[in-house]
Amino acid sequence: MAQHGPRLVIPIDVKKKPHEQALPLHNRWHPEIPPVVEVRTGEVFRVEMVDFSGGRITRNYTIDDIKHADPSIVHYLSGPIRVLDTDGVPAKPGDLLAVEICNLGPLPGDEWGFTASFDRENGGGFLTDHFPCATKAIWYFEGIYAYSPQIPGVRFPGLTHPGIIGTAPCKELLNIWNDREREVEENGLQTLKLCEVLHSRPLANLPSTKGCVLGKIQGGTPEWERIAREAARTIPGRENGGNCDIKNLSRGSKIYLPVFMEGANLSTGDMHFSQGDGEVAFCGAIEMSGFLELKCEIIRGGMKEYLTPMGPTRLHVNPIFEIGPVEPRFSEWLVFEGISVDESGRQHYLDASVAYKRAVLNAIDYLSKFGYSKEQMYLLLSCCPCEGRISGIVDSPNAVATLAIPTSIFDQDIRPKNKIPVGPRLVRKPDVLKCTYDGNLPITKNLSATM
Amino acid sequence: MAQHGPRLVIPIDVKKKPHEQALPLHNRWHPEIPPVVEVRTGEVFRVEMVDFSGGRITRNYTIDDIKHADPSIVHYLSGPIRVLDTDGVPAKPGDLLAVEICNLGPLPGDEWGFTASFDRENGGGFLTDHFPCATKAIWYFEGIYAYSPQIPGVRFPGLTHPGIIGTAPCKELLNIWNDREREVEENGLQTLKLCEVLHSRPLANLPSTKGCVLGKIQGGTPEWERIAREAARTIPGRENGGNCDIKNLSRGSKIYLPVFMEGANLSTGDMHFSQGDGEVAFCGAIEMSGFLELKCEIIRGGMKEYLTPMGPTRLHVNPIFEIGPVEPRFSEWLVFEGISVDESGRQHYLDASVAYKRAVLNAIDYLSKFGYSKEQMYLLLSCCPCEGRISGIVDSPNAVATLAIPTSIFDQDIRPKNKIPVGPRLVRKPDVLKCTYDGNLPITKNLSATM
Amino acid sequence: MAQHGPRLVIPIDVKKKPHEQALPLHNRWHPEIPPVVEVRTGEVFRVEMVDFSGGRITRNYTIDDIKHADPSIVHYLSGPIRVLDTDGVPAKPGDLLAVEICNLGPLPGDEWGFTASFDRENGGGFLTDHFPCATKAIWYFEGIYAYSPQIPGVRFPGLTHPGIIGTAPCKELLNIWNDREREVEENGLQTLKLCEVLHSRPLANLPSTKGCVLGKIQGGTPEWERIAREAARTIPGRENGGNCDIKNLSRGSKIYLPVFMEGANLSTGDMHFSQGDGEVAFCGAIEMSGFLELKCEIIRGGMKEYLTPMGPTRLHVNPIFEIGPVEPRFSEWLVFEGISVDESGRQHYLDASVAYKRAVLNAIDYLSKFGYSKEQMYLLLSCCPCEGRISGIVDSPNAVATLAIPTSIFDQDIRPKNKIPVGPRLVRKPDVLKCTYDGNLPITKNLSATM
Amino acid sequence: MAQHGPRLVIPIDVKKKPHEQALPLHNRWHPEIPPVVEVRTGEVFRVEMVDFSGGRITRNYTIDDIKHADPSIVHYLSGPIRVLDTDGVPAKPGDLLAVEICNLGPLPGDEWGFTASFDRENGGGFLTDHFPCATKAIWYFEGIYAYSPQIPGVRFPGLTHPGIIGTAPCKELLNIWNDREREVEENGLQTLKLCEVLHSRPLANLPSTKGCVLGKIQGGTPEWERIAREAARTIPGRENGGNCDIKNLSRGSKIYLPVFMEGANLSTGDMHFSQGDGEVAFCGAIEMSGFLELKCEIIRGGMKEYLTPMGPTRLHVNPIFEIGPVEPRFSEWLVFEGISVDESGRQHYLDASVAYKRAVLNAIDYLSKFGYSKEQMYLLLSCCPCEGRISGIVDSPNAVATLAIPTSIFDQDIRPKNKIPVGPRLVRKPDVLKCTYDGNLPITKNLSATM
Repeated sequence: MAQHGPRLVIPIDVKKKPHEQALPLHNRWHPEIPPVVEVRTGEVFRVEMVDFSGGRITRNYTIDDIKHADPSIVHYLSGPIRVLDTDGVPAKPGDLLAVEICNLGPLPGDEWGFTASFDRENGGGFLTDHFPCATKAIWYFEGIYAYSPQIPGVRFPGLTHPGIIGTAPCKELLNIWNDREREVEENGLQTLKLCEVLHSRPLANLPSTKGCVLGKIQGGTPEWERIAREAARTIPGRENGGNCDIKNLSRGSKIYLPVFMEGANLSTGDMHFSQGDGEVAFCGAIEMSGFLELKCEIIRGGMKEYLTPMGPTRLHVNPIFEIGPVEPRFSEWLVFEGISVDESGRQHYLDASVAYKRAVLNAIDYLSKFGYSKEQMYLLLSCCPCEGRISGIVDSPNAVATLAIPTSIFDQDIRPKNKIPVGPRLVRKPDVLKCTYDGNLPITKNLSATM
Repeated sequence: MAQHGPRLVIPIDVKKKPHEQALPLHNRWHPEIPPVVEVRTGEVFRVEMVDFSGGRITRNYTIDDIKHADPSIVHYLSGPIRVLDTDGVPAKPGDLLAVEICNLGPLPGDEWGFTASFDRENGGGFLTDHFPCATKAIWYFEGIYAYSPQIPGVRFPGLTHPGIIGTAPCKELLNIWNDREREVEENGLQTLKLCEVLHSRPLANLPSTKGCVLGKIQGGTPEWERIAREAARTIPGRENGGNCDIKNLSRGSKIYLPVFMEGANLSTGDMHFSQGDGEVAFCGAIEMSGFLELKCEIIRGGMKEYLTPMGPTRLHVNPIFEIGPVEPRFSEWLVFEGISVDESGRQHYLDASVAYKRAVLNAIDYLSKFGYSKEQMYLLLSCCPCEGRISGIVDSPNAVATLAIPTSIFDQDIRPKNKIPVGPRLVRKPDVLKCTYDGNLPITKNLSATM
Repeated sequence: MAQHGPRLVIPIDVKKKPHEQALPLHNRWHPEIPPVVEVRTGEVFRVEMVDFSGGRITRNYTIDDIKHADPSIVHYLSGPIRVLDTDGVPAKPGDLLAVEICNLGPLPGDEWGFTASFDRENGGGFLTDHFPCATKAIWYFEGIYAYSPQIPGVRFPGLTHPGIIGTAPCKELLNIWNDREREVEENGLQTLKLCEVLHSRPLANLPSTKGCVLGKIQGGTPEWERIAREAARTIPGRENGGNCDIKNLSRGSKIYLPVFMEGANLSTGDMHFSQGDGEVAFCGAIEMSGFLELKCEIIRGGMKEYLTPMGPTRLHVNPIFEIGPVEPRFSEWLVFEGISVDESGRQHYLDASVAYKRAVLNAIDYLSKFGYSKEQMYLLLSCCPCEGRISGIVDSPNAVATLAIPTSIFDQDIRPKNKIPVGPRLVRKPDVLKCTYDGNLPITKNLSATM
Repeated sequence: MAQHGPRLVIPIDVKKKPHEQALPLHNRWHPEIPPVVEVRTGEVFRVEMVDFSGGRITRNYTIDDIKHADPSIVHYLSGPIRVLDTDGVPAKPGDLLAVEICNLGPLPGDEWGFTASFDRENGGGFLTDHFPCATKAIWYFEGIYAYSPQIPGVRFPGLTHPGIIGTAPCKELLNIWNDREREVEENGLQTLKLCEVLHSRPLANLPSTKGCVLGKIQGGTPEWERIAREAARTIPGRENGGNCDIKNLSRGSKIYLPVFMEGANLSTGDMHFSQGDGEVAFCGAIEMSGFLELKCEIIRGGMKEYLTPMGPTRLHVNPIFEIGPVEPRFSEWLVFEGISVDESGRQHYLDASVAYKRAVLNAIDYLSKFGYSKEQMYLLLSCCPCEGRISGIVDSPNAVATLAIPTSIFDQDIRPKNKIPVGPRLVRKPDVLKCTYDGNLPITKNLSATM
């Protein structure tokens, strides 16, 4: 008889705090964070993980946890996992690690999640100049479905995925990250005009000892201090995968990750019950604790064979992946379009970010005509299975981006009707949890909206 | 007995040149271009159209027509079409025009198309700094399928759509366009840093009398001169729809266009047998002549009811649309990822255009390992039904964009294999039609690619 | 330059009668009907065809043409088409003929169809004991969509396909057909108890000279007389393919047909704009004239290689096929179930036909609660893209069959609601065209339906 | 804070035998089997269940458990569950019980299943006259995927569903069942000619005290004896739902069950990791233990409102259901066809069961050319997500049934190739577990298969 069922290699007890878990977590990328467990290729193993905040953001119907969220602690990851082949030989730099997601889901007994946008001065989000306040909605899961008391009239099946999955960087790659991100933080406001449009958020998130958690590295030691000052934040996706936030990386998907360190040192976390393309509210997926059931293969020498570096070193690569066969199926979509003209009417040059911002704004305003508040729709478009597309990127000067929304997630028909006035159902109450914005940064008002 | 079958309102004879067609074409947007035909809501009518170049780009296996293409003549459109309701009352400014695409396809007897990239100094394309030469491939249609002698080993069903469909702008909107685009052309190089990355192409395409075709407006008259100097180019998508290049706008789709002029004055053209999201090679869809069978509804007052202006005037709106039910169905996708770090290794701030450029470059390099030339893959990813997604737009400083390619369009298995060396089938010969680049602009080399 | 576009090999003029067409049609299967045209493997060719009745059933809003339909003339087919390879060598007995349907559709200018059920004594239908009257509905096409004035409130995209496509039988196979079908006609009522349930229709359709059309065979000659007495009717599907009525055999499909005669002698006809699994009303698809664009390959020796005979001779085979990639996409289905207990309450043994009859009856009754007449629903379920499944065939004594209906074809929500009384929209008027049943056969009444 | 997560109402310990479980199971339908638990509408609750055999069929690589399986004990069900509305009022006869399957899956720690065919004299299967031996394959689950060491080269995602879900019958309905099934068992061989074709299996499964398990009813009492003699076997699907074996009744589906007894008394069991339409091998799904997460609604008076009786009493109804949104997605299918001519060449009249038998036989023979044994394919087509369709049911005398197989479940390309000999990969070893057939019933040989 063959063995069966996944082997639990990283357990999580959701009643405990991150530092109390059986195996230590980490929230930084660094080559020297030691693996906490070993797996073999071909075996199915189970990794459990806390939500990205390690339980600091709660199921209470209050907004304080979001308003005062500490960005230094994100994201608590499970791992690193050292991967060996069936002969016991570890993955080596230059290999590709093929990771199949055999299954995933919320942790039993913890079937809920949250979607939030941070205060503009505490992380913000894609539309923070329009929505500077902290907001939050709680979602409950009924098997494959999620619903939120704060966004009534909506229910949808999740396309569940890990927000973060990646291998450990080597020292050379880590240095590349820190150098280029320091450059953008220091000089970005002068040289990057996109900052003016997406203007209110940190330009980068550089290493910080504050909030740093480094797995088995003993806190308070000089080693810990050194590593904490070097270790990259987990916020952006990078060459090692990481926070890719690719919403289709769900059941049955396979991700091909470059290996930079012996053993690959795979880490994962930031589970999302569901997310829209772009995750526009930033804390914008349905964030939850959860589990993955994974199976690894090692493709020896696969980096050279399959990945072409695109940059000054052979480390400038990106993962590739295959989509799994059980995504929720929607046949009817309503699509919103944006062009790269900003809210002031200014023309940008083939800028897909500006175009997408406009598409999302168009969608929020449209949906708000059906009885929702704009904040409800901002959070919804951040976490429902909507698709963000780059439709045209060559027709100077306008990029065209589109946002496609499956209509069946609503309990009313949201398509335009031939006979108006249409009777939108008023579902605005209750609204999302929300607090005031007390900062001084300018807010983008859409003056025409009330013409 | 009810009438049946579409009424042919704009016929095209593909053996004739654009100016010889029964009804005059036009290639500019202007409120004063008179309608050439009237239709009623509820009736199904057929509009035929020449390819965007009006036949100047030919089926010959030569590259000269692309190398010396005249950008001033694009795009030849059919229309304007004046839309009346069943009582004979025309669409009015402030209405929404709902246009259902009941059917579409190539013109009988003209079942072929082309995909091309222009020379870097003659229009270029999204990757023109990598691929500065003019290239071209001819596609032949076998019903729903297309294949190209220049890209052997590939065949796929088309997701056919009009590249351009839009209503006529009013004078106020036209002025807004001309002002903001002049601004980017004049000052863009100083203020828009994205230009440095996508750096070699015209920043905008301002009105020009050269190549201008204005439908029923009599050439050589002062009126013609005035309008030609004001009329907007059809290259970018804008508030009126226009060159949206939305590849999913196919059979059964419905587009909701704002009405700015009495009668709506709908024009359409630039038929694509198939296109990938982004249409990266610029002349990058499978360009063809074709027909649309359309049915219109008028939603009176629908702009105010459904579209929220997003900008300084009530005219700053965008169309919305519904996707039709018969898109080709693919179940297996290979996905490439890009982050907003450019080829020099420089970090950009949440820039989806840079991230998408990197995703496309990654895909081209990957596929070239299976026996294709990079130019073949550049054209293929421009015209096959691949999906370009904005996956993450909030994780500073990296935007994450993805490019998903349906694997079944290839006659070989393009997925990574566990056992290498894999045996890619060598299909490089023949290659795309191609000529030299004789200009002086710098070329982006990927030095690491050969490490 | 390659040639392009399909070559028209069999033209149809819909204004002419069947016997006036440029190339003669035929409505029987016989090895000696000579081919009317030759094609080569690899070329795309176009075959046009009249509707199955050759125009006898009209677009008039009358029922007489159905009531008095002459079953002896069905189905007018285009062909036979002789298939050669690129060296000019014909397909040979024992080969497989792979026929790809590159494209298909209604004939331009003839975009309409009809769905009907015959009078119980003139052909009947699957539910003729419930619906003994002749009924008829006219459908108009708006591109991919069909709607009927006789069944208001319904519109759907067609999954268009040829009802009949097949190769010519050899003499041995023809004899097998005639022998076994004569046996069922002569002795079926005694030996086949299923006849009692599906009891009112012809048990078989044997060769008849009445109505017979034999292509190039000169009428009135002894040869014609002999062949007409031998030639098989086209009504049932058989080893050569023929009237398979497989609704998914649409654009992009490929059918692998056994070759019994030199040249294969492919014939096709009976175009359906759309059909439900089972085609329950018998004349039950949306019947129309139309065209196919086909491409053939010959797999030499393929019958032996791929098809296993299942019966007393090596000729007892069946075609196989692949489904194409552009079927209409529906995500929401309402499913009705039937078990093999008949309307009298009698138990049948694992009888999928009885179970399916019950599933269809259940669906008709259910839908009639939403404002439709039962006759409307009988015709609709016969022609809309519904799926008939054999769900359980082993759980003695009940077979379980299911009928899945895409909900989006209705303009009202047909799902059960939690709050009753539901407000079904009354769409019963007008009804299908209909006449009285004047015969004497017993009608099955569902007495419980009014309890 | 709202409650969250499903409430476990029926727990199963897979290490214990059926009679040792915390709540008693049952394996018969009878109105007097008392409910074991109560649930409210709107709450999500979890029901766990043993596999249909209660653990008698094991994970050992032996065939004895199948060869000597005791058919009297099937199927162990969890329940009955009494359903109340939020006011505590139970479901009542005449209501509809809407049961949403929010989630389902194997029981943690028990991620394996089996597929088997019984010996011809011990239950048999759809093709038992071809495959009279008992056979068995063990499947292991890797998250959403299953693979079997006995059928190498195949792996597929499960469309998991409960084989059995139903409400308790009232006494009147139970009597109807027993009467009509006794009739078929006693007289079927004389009156039902289909028995000659599907000839070797029990015609019905009447009540038997042997193996009977009745939940809370105390064994050995006169009450137990009486009920055991009356209680219907769970093998066939009937008016109450029951063993419908509808493979699409998976995550997100909703089933509308008629209520015959106060409280509805819902029971469920016979979990299938995956099943093909028809479940042809009889013990033919991937049988497993598992769990359901359910949510109920009561539609008061819904039977009269939505279900039409089809038979002599108002109880002759059938459930309806909606399909969920996360079925595995396959885009390429190979389809086999069967007509209602049996293996001896005899013509049957519109008999979908005979046609489907032939389609399955055709598929098995075809696939066996690619290196599989016929027994492997018999089991595979019984449990993989293949679709069985009634394509034509009106073209006398032939019914046409089709079997569509998703090609991507194989690790080789199983489509016909233009160039033969094709090189099928030999994957025959090891074969399914198998033993001899020692009985005397005639075996159907396909003599032509070796011509």
